[in-house]
Amino acid sequence: MTVSCKRIQIDTQGQGEILNVTSEIAREVNNSGVNDGTVTVFIPGSTAGVSTIEFEPGLVTDMKEMWERIVPSNISYEHNKAWGDGNGHAHIRASLLSPSITVPFVHKRLTLGTWQQIVILDFDVRPRSREIILQIMGE
Amino acid sequence: MTVSCKRIQIDTQGQGEILNVTSEIAREVNNSGVNDGTVTVFIPGSTAGVSTIEFEPGLVTDMKEMWERIVPSNISYEHNKAWGDGNGHAHIRASLLSPSITVPFVHKRLTLGTWQQIVILDFDVRPRSREIILQIMGE
Amino acid sequence: MTVSCKRIQIDTQGQGEILNVTSEIAREVNNSGVNDGTVTVFIPGSTAGVSTIEFEPGLVTDMKEMWERIVPSNISYEHNKAWGDGNGHAHIRASLLSPSITVPFVHKRLTLGTWQQIVILDFDVRPRSREIILQIMGE
Repeated sequence: MTVSCKRIQIDTQGQGEILNVTSEIAREVNNSGVNDGTVTVFIPGSTAGVSTIEFEPGLVTDMKEMWERIVPSNISYEHNKAWGDGNGHAHIRASLLSPSITVPFVHKRLTLGTWQQIVILDFDVRPRSREIILQIMGE
Repeated sequence: MTVSCKRIQIDTQGQGEILNVTSEIAREVNNSGVNDGTVTVFIPGSTAGVSTIEFEPGLVTDMKEMWERIVPSNISYEHNKAWGDGNGHAHIRASLLSPSITVPFVHKRLTLGTWQQIVILDFDVRPRSREIILQIMGE
Repeated sequence: MTVSCKRIQIDTQGQGEILNVTSEIAREVNNSGVNDGTVTVFIPGSTAGVSTIEFEPGLVTDMKEMWERIVPSNISYEHNKAWGDGNGHAHIRASLLSPSITVPFVHKRLTLGTWQQIVILDFDVRPRSREIILQIMGE
């Protein structure tokens, strides 16, 4: 059994930006020396999340509109009253989405669908440098 | 340590259908030769997701109504304008829900609650044949 | 490779209460004898969920308001008509949020952000005693 922890650095623009990190994750899995197992993709921080999507411009727009609809940026948040940083909606979106997904791989290949990419959603209201943790486990 | 990858085939009707796959997963875990560990339930594709629910007809209806309320099928999606397949809402629902859950098991038994079942939600607008990946890891 | 299953007991008030369980989880990871790996935090039952949040009073209030907005407690649920227990919204919220997250740890330390805590959300309409499963795996 092997545990291999890798870290990916990304710069984001925030504001709900959606970044495709599939090729970086596939490369780390391929280079890990582990043939079969899982990669847990975890983003430290409380204003960003991880999911999968068919990464094409239409859905990127649709996803941002969904977030604005269900967790609007322009309503009142207690967090903003207390801290004044204006990112209450970013925290709530991140908590609803979740900070991690776990993706199986077999013979070093992620079991993603053909049109399914792993994405980071950065909901914060300013550009951020993010570190993504990849915990690769298996044999 | 053992890694055992199993695949379950299911035919769905789409349109938000919710399928109870608990007994199939429990059987694969029981037959895997692994006593204690986790099963990661992952669905390839970008229009379906995985969760748990008390699987009874009332909640199945309530769940579908929730999805129609927060990610409606009858509003405009950029994805549909570009691709014409009419399943923009299915993609957005799947991304919000997430494609995987990880469930512990102890002495070959899933640690689910008594009224908690593992379900696949297929949001696509047509019947699909789906393959679910079970990555069983432990010792 | 080691698999270590720990259980945390908590008493909740329900009604969407959000409980910070980070220190309990960090302690179990630290005491597990595993240096590097993942902890899967899983809550049995179908009316509670797990996520991360910056645990401060403003966001706790904002989170409860978000749930009331997207999965209201005061609308009609088929589950309530059939079972009369009045917790249909609790089930639907739990299914949308998900019952598990998986958090990596390195040198026995969770890879959480500085202001990111692991929380249990109990959506049920009455006080509950809950058991949380921690499946700690690694080497």
